[in-house]
Amino acid sequence: MDKILLISVVVPGRDGEKVVDVLIAGNRFARIGKVSPEESLGAEVVDCSGFAILPAFYNGHTHAAMTLLRGYADDMPLQKWLQEYIWPFEAKLTGDDIDVACRLALLEMIKSGTVFFADMYWHRERTIKVVGEMGIRAAVGVTFAESLMTPEQIEGNFKFLAAHTGESERVRLAVAPHSVYTVGEALLKRCADFARSEKFLVHTHLSETLKELEDCERQYGCSPVRLLERAGMLDSNLAAAHCVHFSDDDMKAFVDSGATAVLNPNSNLKLASGIPPIDRLLRSGANVALGTDGDSSNNNLDMHEEMKLAALLAKVQGGAETLPAHDALKMATVNSARAYGLEDAGEIREGFLADCLLVDLNNERMVPRHNLVSNWVYAADSSCIDSVICNGKFVMRGHHVDGEEEIIREAEACAKRLAAN
Amino acid sequence: MDKILLISVVVPGRDGEKVVDVLIAGNRFARIGKVSPEESLGAEVVDCSGFAILPAFYNGHTHAAMTLLRGYADDMPLQKWLQEYIWPFEAKLTGDDIDVACRLALLEMIKSGTVFFADMYWHRERTIKVVGEMGIRAAVGVTFAESLMTPEQIEGNFKFLAAHTGESERVRLAVAPHSVYTVGEALLKRCADFARSEKFLVHTHLSETLKELEDCERQYGCSPVRLLERAGMLDSNLAAAHCVHFSDDDMKAFVDSGATAVLNPNSNLKLASGIPPIDRLLRSGANVALGTDGDSSNNNLDMHEEMKLAALLAKVQGGAETLPAHDALKMATVNSARAYGLEDAGEIREGFLADCLLVDLNNERMVPRHNLVSNWVYAADSSCIDSVICNGKFVMRGHHVDGEEEIIREAEACAKRLAAN
Repeated sequence: MDKILLISVVVPGRDGEKVVDVLIAGNRFARIGKVSPEESLGAEVVDCSGFAILPAFYNGHTHAAMTLLRGYADDMPLQKWLQEYIWPFEAKLTGDDIDVACRLALLEMIKSGTVFFADMYWHRERTIKVVGEMGIRAAVGVTFAESLMTPEQIEGNFKFLAAHTGESERVRLAVAPHSVYTVGEALLKRCADFARSEKFLVHTHLSETLKELEDCERQYGCSPVRLLERAGMLDSNLAAAHCVHFSDDDMKAFVDSGATAVLNPNSNLKLASGIPPIDRLLRSGANVALGTDGDSSNNNLDMHEEMKLAALLAKVQGGAETLPAHDALKMATVNSARAYGLEDAGEIREGFLADCLLVDLNNERMVPRHNLVSNWVYAADSSCIDSVICNGKFVMRGHHVDGEEEIIREAEACAKRLAAN
Repeated sequence: MDKILLISVVVPGRDGEKVVDVLIAGNRFARIGKVSPEESLGAEVVDCSGFAILPAFYNGHTHAAMTLLRGYADDMPLQKWLQEYIWPFEAKLTGDDIDVACRLALLEMIKSGTVFFADMYWHRERTIKVVGEMGIRAAVGVTFAESLMTPEQIEGNFKFLAAHTGESERVRLAVAPHSVYTVGEALLKRCADFARSEKFLVHTHLSETLKELEDCERQYGCSPVRLLERAGMLDSNLAAAHCVHFSDDDMKAFVDSGATAVLNPNSNLKLASGIPPIDRLLRSGANVALGTDGDSSNNNLDMHEEMKLAALLAKVQGGAETLPAHDALKMATVNSARAYGLEDAGEIREGFLADCLLVDLNNERMVPRHNLVSNWVYAADSSCIDSVICNGKFVMRGHHVDGEEEIIREAEACAKRLAAN
């Protein structure tokens, strides 16, 4: 079994930081504290003085392959953005382009400290392949968008799921009905029933814009939340992205169901969808996680930015004491992991999956260190992340990811070709 | 005269990017485009292929020395934060501590691409000294806070200003009455008269919290904006930090005066002061610039974060087309420079001060490059900044600032000592 011994690393805690040794054995944290010579026999020893160990990020909602559309269209209303720019560009994407796009996305995630993402897009087999290559985790959504698919494609989705195609130690599938405005009530119900009986998680967009609410009210006579409830989808296995517009009635139904709200504040602000009701969600007792949405609406996949922005918005909504740093960190780590069934991930804890960051304590943003977690949440950025470990293996080391130069060269060339055609 | 020739660097423009050579001669951009061998004779030649040249940031409002308080107290209401944590800590700061604190602050600014800051704090002579050492620019506020000063100290301030003490090519002074709640009407008036007759800029806090508005109304029967107007301070030489709470009447008076609003959205959200009315300010035709506020309330000095957050908040207030990337960049660069009298700074332009960043176009966040400025504003972070030039000299090169290791060591030791006492 592969072992890594991290020597003299700073680990944060609610009652102050400690300097410890951390033994990783296989894909788990085997010991945190004092490691005996017997336990660590054969381990690669890494001197971590000057570094802190922190949980890596779990991105609860994204569209990885949209990385190729970063900066392709900005600063315009949603409908124009989608219809005149995003959809025509997407129509040109081949499977090979998706490989290139996903590699760039995963590179960006790793460099900003993310080891897991919940994806929703087309060409899922390509996404699964790239996740395999690059060493991180994903819940790959098998996407249902009824208005854009043939009945055969819909049946193909269920077959793909039933066979657990492409699943592995690091990859699981999720049932991903896109939204209430692209999937009808009957198919929503079928997705919900299937997910419950086959034990899949469900990943969808929910209550992102006021237009979605108005259209749902007109078509179904209820809110998107109540429609999901009617379809049997409002359940504890649901990870619902956005959740910007919840009435009090929506909020109660949502919280009672045990579903998770995966907030994407950067995207919601940039597309002018609204400010997610973070303080209300927290006061209502909802499970709240975070995601970045895709690169075309954010325009990056940096979970740290999402974490800081969520904390700031929560405070201006509920007062300066709302969502303190420790809890903001949890939203971006353990809460997002749990929403996707990773019950033993997102914390630096014996027995948990060995996913973590080594953060440079001599980076100017981490100094002085009155409070490590506060520095991390409010002052740091990606430049502070020296190394990333996922599933017990380094995926970034000394700021470098294997193959990054080639990934960038190919992505730039591919995007240029697509934009020119 | 020292010269630097930047070869094959990408420069953005509204109608697309170009690859150019840039000649810096002394402290100015001498030529942008094609540089003749005669002009560049004796220049240090730097190959910039793979880099873009972008304007450096100008931080319109900060308290540099508060860097030592980063993370010392967070997630609590303003009054508790100030009275139980910030003020007792500050009371212990000596002049030598201020040196250490300012060096860390300036290191942080340089690493995140900032070449100018408008400061307001005590021990201005220490701040001036460190700005001299570290090669960037500042408008150092000579701070008036009547409730905390003796009459002799107040007279000392005016003498310091009248003698232009410590001013140099990179340092200018500003008259800095702290706020309407720490400076009485008579002294506000004296500051305003003095600044006008002696041609100084005025830097103050304005309309930051609702409490400030309520107290001002009770004490003076008017809003802070109207009080500044009564005191003759509402003028085009005023840079007013925060501007969170403006009535329509305040807005009109402010815009008519030609004063600049220096917004600090990170700080306002984190302290739960409110969301600055960016869209309303823009629609009213106000001059709008950006600042970070101090490290104790942000908790960093990263103008890039301020720029992105301002753009996002403007959009959610006014629609997705509000404050497009080019204009957000201007807020953080040329608008902030002009607010402090730097009329020929903040753009990559012949004859302008040679302040700029070299940004790594092979950083994953800058790829693909459909739109350089959009990538820079919405996707980048400090990890994309390779080098920083201020006043025609490199102050950071290849991510490294001379002496940074010692600055960090001293700051950590100093903060630890202060927190322990």
